[in-house]
Amino acid sequence: MTDLDFKKTGGLIPAIAQDFETGDVLMLAYMNEAAWKETLASGMATYFSRSRQSLWKKGETSGNQQIVKEIRVDCDNDTVLLKVEQRGGAACHKGYRSCFYKKIIDENSIEIVEPKIFDPKEVYK
Amino acid sequence: MTDLDFKKTGGLIPAIAQDFETGDVLMLAYMNEAAWKETLASGMATYFSRSRQSLWKKGETSGNQQIVKEIRVDCDNDTVLLKVEQRGGAACHKGYRSCFYKKIIDENSIEIVEPKIFDPKEVYK
Repeated sequence: MTDLDFKKTGGLIPAIAQDFETGDVLMLAYMNEAAWKETLASGMATYFSRSRQSLWKKGETSGNQQIVKEIRVDCDNDTVLLKVEQRGGAACHKGYRSCFYKKIIDENSIEIVEPKIFDPKEVYK
Repeated sequence: MTDLDFKKTGGLIPAIAQDFETGDVLMLAYMNEAAWKETLASGMATYFSRSRQSLWKKGETSGNQQIVKEIRVDCDNDTVLLKVEQRGGAACHKGYRSCFYKKIIDENSIEIVEPKIFDPKEVYK
């Protein structure tokens, strides 16, 4: 088993999901050890939801699953990078392809720089 | 001031550094509010070192600074994505371009898939 350092950050490590083709960073979520094992075993990105305090099989509700194409681990074994195929075209629960759809313009302003792929009200009923 | 949610994670939020040209994810580090403000003000990636418990102007020792080209903020305002120009060709303190130089082959094996750019012993004296 590939040993990750879950202890340093109280049981959860950050996991970055990146589009395996375009290189776009889609989102960041957290994994506990169970989520990590489930991701390895299933080949589908599985996180730990901090708000629900439970395993989160990404896309279970929305259909926007992430098929894991490659996994990288960082130098300190406390961060994971998943290169994924994003089903449904959107990773973000707010309907955008990437959660990082807001660009800092200056200290006081932000601009939305990505188009909305779906309407969250239609997907999460 | 762009409001980030530093409270959710005890004062520190994850910041992903991505090469602004290639899209390669270089590293993940953490920012407290002071690091965020310093990054905005200086245009140079500044983090908070958890091990040293102090502000960490990336590249101050190694010369491998990160010039911030663009900043994205995620949907929940609790993760930052920096698109950077990586000076010196390497972001990782172990001498690799990216901290994510280890690829998971299977549950029991990891392979180093990037070349070493510098020898840490020569840089951190």
